[in-house]
Amino acid sequence: MAGSSFGKQLVMTTWGESHGAGIGAVVDGCPAGLPITEEYIQAYLDRRKPGGRDFATPRQEADRVRILSGIFEGKTTGTPISMEIMNTSQRSGDYGNLATTYRPGHADYGYDAKYGFRDYRGGGRSSGRETAGRVAAGAIAARLLEEKGVFVQAYVSAVGPVRCDTSRFDPLSPDPAVIAGNALSMPDPAAAEEAANYLKQLMAKQDSSGSEVTCIVKGLPAGVGEPVFDKLDAVLGQAIFSIGAVKAVEIGDGTAVVRARGSENNDGFYMKDGIVSKKTNHAGGILGGISDGSEIVIRASFKPTPSIFREQQTVNRAHEDVSLSIRGRHDPVIGPRAAVVVETMTAFAIADLLLRNENSRMER
Amino acid sequence: MAGSSFGKQLVMTTWGESHGAGIGAVVDGCPAGLPITEEYIQAYLDRRKPGGRDFATPRQEADRVRILSGIFEGKTTGTPISMEIMNTSQRSGDYGNLATTYRPGHADYGYDAKYGFRDYRGGGRSSGRETAGRVAAGAIAARLLEEKGVFVQAYVSAVGPVRCDTSRFDPLSPDPAVIAGNALSMPDPAAAEEAANYLKQLMAKQDSSGSEVTCIVKGLPAGVGEPVFDKLDAVLGQAIFSIGAVKAVEIGDGTAVVRARGSENNDGFYMKDGIVSKKTNHAGGILGGISDGSEIVIRASFKPTPSIFREQQTVNRAHEDVSLSIRGRHDPVIGPRAAVVVETMTAFAIADLLLRNENSRMER
Amino acid sequence: MAGSSFGKQLVMTTWGESHGAGIGAVVDGCPAGLPITEEYIQAYLDRRKPGGRDFATPRQEADRVRILSGIFEGKTTGTPISMEIMNTSQRSGDYGNLATTYRPGHADYGYDAKYGFRDYRGGGRSSGRETAGRVAAGAIAARLLEEKGVFVQAYVSAVGPVRCDTSRFDPLSPDPAVIAGNALSMPDPAAAEEAANYLKQLMAKQDSSGSEVTCIVKGLPAGVGEPVFDKLDAVLGQAIFSIGAVKAVEIGDGTAVVRARGSENNDGFYMKDGIVSKKTNHAGGILGGISDGSEIVIRASFKPTPSIFREQQTVNRAHEDVSLSIRGRHDPVIGPRAAVVVETMTAFAIADLLLRNENSRMER
Amino acid sequence: MAGSSFGKQLVMTTWGESHGAGIGAVVDGCPAGLPITEEYIQAYLDRRKPGGRDFATPRQEADRVRILSGIFEGKTTGTPISMEIMNTSQRSGDYGNLATTYRPGHADYGYDAKYGFRDYRGGGRSSGRETAGRVAAGAIAARLLEEKGVFVQAYVSAVGPVRCDTSRFDPLSPDPAVIAGNALSMPDPAAAEEAANYLKQLMAKQDSSGSEVTCIVKGLPAGVGEPVFDKLDAVLGQAIFSIGAVKAVEIGDGTAVVRARGSENNDGFYMKDGIVSKKTNHAGGILGGISDGSEIVIRASFKPTPSIFREQQTVNRAHEDVSLSIRGRHDPVIGPRAAVVVETMTAFAIADLLLRNENSRMER
Repeated sequence: MAGSSFGKQLVMTTWGESHGAGIGAVVDGCPAGLPITEEYIQAYLDRRKPGGRDFATPRQEADRVRILSGIFEGKTTGTPISMEIMNTSQRSGDYGNLATTYRPGHADYGYDAKYGFRDYRGGGRSSGRETAGRVAAGAIAARLLEEKGVFVQAYVSAVGPVRCDTSRFDPLSPDPAVIAGNALSMPDPAAAEEAANYLKQLMAKQDSSGSEVTCIVKGLPAGVGEPVFDKLDAVLGQAIFSIGAVKAVEIGDGTAVVRARGSENNDGFYMKDGIVSKKTNHAGGILGGISDGSEIVIRASFKPTPSIFREQQTVNRAHEDVSLSIRGRHDPVIGPRAAVVVETMTAFAIADLLLRNENSRMER
Repeated sequence: MAGSSFGKQLVMTTWGESHGAGIGAVVDGCPAGLPITEEYIQAYLDRRKPGGRDFATPRQEADRVRILSGIFEGKTTGTPISMEIMNTSQRSGDYGNLATTYRPGHADYGYDAKYGFRDYRGGGRSSGRETAGRVAAGAIAARLLEEKGVFVQAYVSAVGPVRCDTSRFDPLSPDPAVIAGNALSMPDPAAAEEAANYLKQLMAKQDSSGSEVTCIVKGLPAGVGEPVFDKLDAVLGQAIFSIGAVKAVEIGDGTAVVRARGSENNDGFYMKDGIVSKKTNHAGGILGGISDGSEIVIRASFKPTPSIFREQQTVNRAHEDVSLSIRGRHDPVIGPRAAVVVETMTAFAIADLLLRNENSRMER
Repeated sequence: MAGSSFGKQLVMTTWGESHGAGIGAVVDGCPAGLPITEEYIQAYLDRRKPGGRDFATPRQEADRVRILSGIFEGKTTGTPISMEIMNTSQRSGDYGNLATTYRPGHADYGYDAKYGFRDYRGGGRSSGRETAGRVAAGAIAARLLEEKGVFVQAYVSAVGPVRCDTSRFDPLSPDPAVIAGNALSMPDPAAAEEAANYLKQLMAKQDSSGSEVTCIVKGLPAGVGEPVFDKLDAVLGQAIFSIGAVKAVEIGDGTAVVRARGSENNDGFYMKDGIVSKKTNHAGGILGGISDGSEIVIRASFKPTPSIFREQQTVNRAHEDVSLSIRGRHDPVIGPRAAVVVETMTAFAIADLLLRNENSRMER
Repeated sequence: MAGSSFGKQLVMTTWGESHGAGIGAVVDGCPAGLPITEEYIQAYLDRRKPGGRDFATPRQEADRVRILSGIFEGKTTGTPISMEIMNTSQRSGDYGNLATTYRPGHADYGYDAKYGFRDYRGGGRSSGRETAGRVAAGAIAARLLEEKGVFVQAYVSAVGPVRCDTSRFDPLSPDPAVIAGNALSMPDPAAAEEAANYLKQLMAKQDSSGSEVTCIVKGLPAGVGEPVFDKLDAVLGQAIFSIGAVKAVEIGDGTAVVRARGSENNDGFYMKDGIVSKKTNHAGGILGGISDGSEIVIRASFKPTPSIFREQQTVNRAHEDVSLSIRGRHDPVIGPRAAVVVETMTAFAIADLLLRNENSRMER
């Protein structure tokens, strides 16, 4: 059953496979009158583009977005915005035994079990390339949020055992230039350097590393999130877990709350400059599923890239035990390119709920 | 905008406030012919019922479920199943300054910011009591899963610093009798005893503790989950984060994947008794958002109960700094009563996706 | 698959069978702060109540609505509003061969074909009694529309060959007192009298009559309706066709447009008192699926009551040809009791689209 | 709010404006393994293509569909099918006062009222050209229905006062070759000739005509349709009313039921060759919102083309009374090109409900 749409008021529908004709998204429900350009969207796509970074695959995709509808005279018209990113560098006929072998850590077996067969070229729909459509759609959401004074930023906060040191940067206001200035999208240059060395060692061993992405939302007013199933954290949970390779989502203190006591975990309210404020933000800006006016803090744990070059044991479609050697182009770590996916998915989820919240009462 | 429904093929809609007339749920889309009784549902509700356990509030609610529609001659008819659990012990007029004061760690401020006012009686819709409706709905899903050979079980795996020791029980097949046999719903009696002592110490200090719930799904075939936004983990993420007080959701190895290497995190496939199997299950049974035939492993981190009895600083509706002393009935830990909520929400999400998967191909 | 919910921003979910415990509805997504009382809703229910009119079944249901949630201190809280109307007069064990025989003109055969069995008591879910839930939900929508200056009114415009004469009343502003003052809900007393005589003749022959209901919406601003599938007429089409026994829905001139010419069917715009107005309203207030500021005019054609007392030929569950004699309580015409259903379904559809339209642009 | 998607299990999302880059649709939820080609879809598009018929606009669009995703090795993969039809002949800069003038009978005023401005080029999103996306999507549904033995056919049954004579053709099995063989898509050649003469007279007077399209569904099993809001007729009602210019939708006897008596309107069931059959089909194959195994019969009344060449009075964006002369390319009647739109929307609605029905019971 259909599962390629996300959002209820602002809705994206994505399509496309890694090595098909292209990738795209339709954004429906965007209010009319939002100024938007292809360049604005392109800047987000460029952040997830392979090839530009030391630890990304050498595949060279132009990844140029084209807007096909829904924009007139530089502004959204209120009608669906269709965008496409045509594939240009896909190679054909070169999949070897990937057509019939189930790669460990991948969805190959699941797709065959589900659909009876699959487009095996480059992972088909389960490829990370699928996220290009989301990023384009999320860029529109980010543009909408900008107009409403809400800003979203994601960065890599850990690669394997190397963790950014929050004494060296402001975790709520990391410097975008620093993040963009290193191959690992980390706001702490020292950690970035250390992580780069760690990855080089792993690559020498034909191995890969896990990573963590942190995402911050600033400027979100209190009251956003729809009880009881479309709570802000619930929708964010779906949004972030829908990104491939995510194995944990945390809000605020996350898993650390298990060991916490109520007296320390409760964020006391107080008045600051006439605004209801909190002395701490263990909650990560969400209480009872509704934004409380503080920064939203989300963390996503990405598993190590499953495509590693060392030989692995697995099975094939004929249900035989086989050994597999993966070749081709694969990042040794997922977080650096996925950070913009986390950022744009978060932006989309927040924009949808912000619009939904506009009808919460008869009088405003 | 409406957010009280969950699921797409199998849909629950819940309603009700803590101290209103009652709590209920409507389950729509359940296939006809499923045998179900009020007793079956009641058994699930009894597991979240307050009053039956040392560390639960002394509030005495009969919490009797009544089925009002959708069942005829002991079986579902395919039409909506309406269930209600009337409130019987709500007290009135005894809310003191809770009507105007924002409790730290609660949604009070968020509700006022969103709706302009709120039903302050016992937390209204944001009360944990809201989950009674979900549990009733999820019990129907669990019944449906039983028929299809799928079983879901949740238990408390940690309370504060006390963690169950998996050398003392089978974490994939915990003994339900052991779990039901201690006040903390833990499958490891020694841990349960230690946790009980820990909680008693906290209660003496008018404090509360965080906790962790683990949920296992067995018997789920490969292929369940809808790319790309309704992936199995994405839907579970929404389901579990929609439960109050959850601050992290993990699948399989969860946050530990950040430090892992691909060579150790990849679960190698192999043939076992003619079945595609995996040597390990770091993935927690989900690859690329689709079930892989292994056990699904989910963990939810619950924050400490925010209602603690020691005096706290906060603000009120008039935006004044005030101090607050909470009285009444409050559990010192959330996990033990929430385990059945995690279990039934998981069951509902799985049942919905299992039904959705039945249309995945033209021929079966 | 679930089909018991209607609306996207304002959503109703209905439940209940004719002879089960009761009938009800949950309305989710109603903005907070709308004043509403049980009495307001009851007044709508009383209009569809059997027993109060000469041409309605003698079944005596108190049909008292009870609000169970979502209202606090007389106003909506923004959380789901659950309402129930318990069945009080259902008789049991008296269904004779209706349990196994497919009544002509009814859904009995369809339900068995679909679900494998059915609740045969009084038609179960396919009974006209199901509409009680919709009427309660629609009454809330009507209350919301009132606040926004929009008013909906439905009346019976024809019974068999007897048609109201628009030279005797204002078809856009019929007198509610006149409509309520006759057993057939007609705004033209002379037509009502003639229709009553016609029905008496049919009843003597154990027969029934078709009827037509007209519904007018006043005060709806231009711009309501969502291209391209949730156009105003498309959503009204679903809403009205979802009422049992409706076989045609017309907007404005309806079927008469087939014979019309463009030069006469086009409603010319002109400025009147500074407002964009139309000289005629062949369009029934909807152009391209969007309201144009004129009155919305809808007509629904109801088939004759299928439950007639004369003997009919049909088949049974065992697939044998049998003859059937229906006894019990049945109206000889559907429109008079269905008018309020058309009115409230229209109100619900319009309220949903009015709320949805509030996000149509960035700036208002 | 988003309104560009239709269907629940099988979902189409359409995009595109008349004079933008192109038109397209994404179909999500199509089961894997359905053989489909661009040629199959193109044949449907060719039926709505302008230029090929005497009474259609001379605009020459190649209207070539391209499938961008979701098909691999000639079969659907279960992932979203993206299709686009690029615009090739749009002219620019030649809209004169259409940018600021509200055409009578069109959605221009509604779009401005709703969105604050509009893409005025060729009607933008409200153009009939929007239906190209639906036809492509509906062609996939028709292909799916074929596999399940269900066939849909639409034809023009009336143009102005000229009505096909059912004594001259089988209204339930019209000859596709005859329909394709005349410019008006009528199954009765004599009526087609008479209608052609009628239209020529109107064109000479710079006028246009209304029309009626009839659509037949054969082979649909009993049991399809989801109570109570997604009844078969309700979903068809939405589907057909969502097509521009439709002012009435009828099922079976349609508006004629108002004058009918129950004894004549009830279709008696009887056994025929071991199958539950009906002696008549006044119901048009739908009872209580569920298919009864008979042919589904739908009629849509199309208003006359609103774009006529004679001068009309209207208003402009500045709210001034102005006169308007429309030039360009406009059909004098809508039905002949819209028949395939009715057919494909019907196919899509039926296919969605057929898939939804597959989960109606635990055991089949």
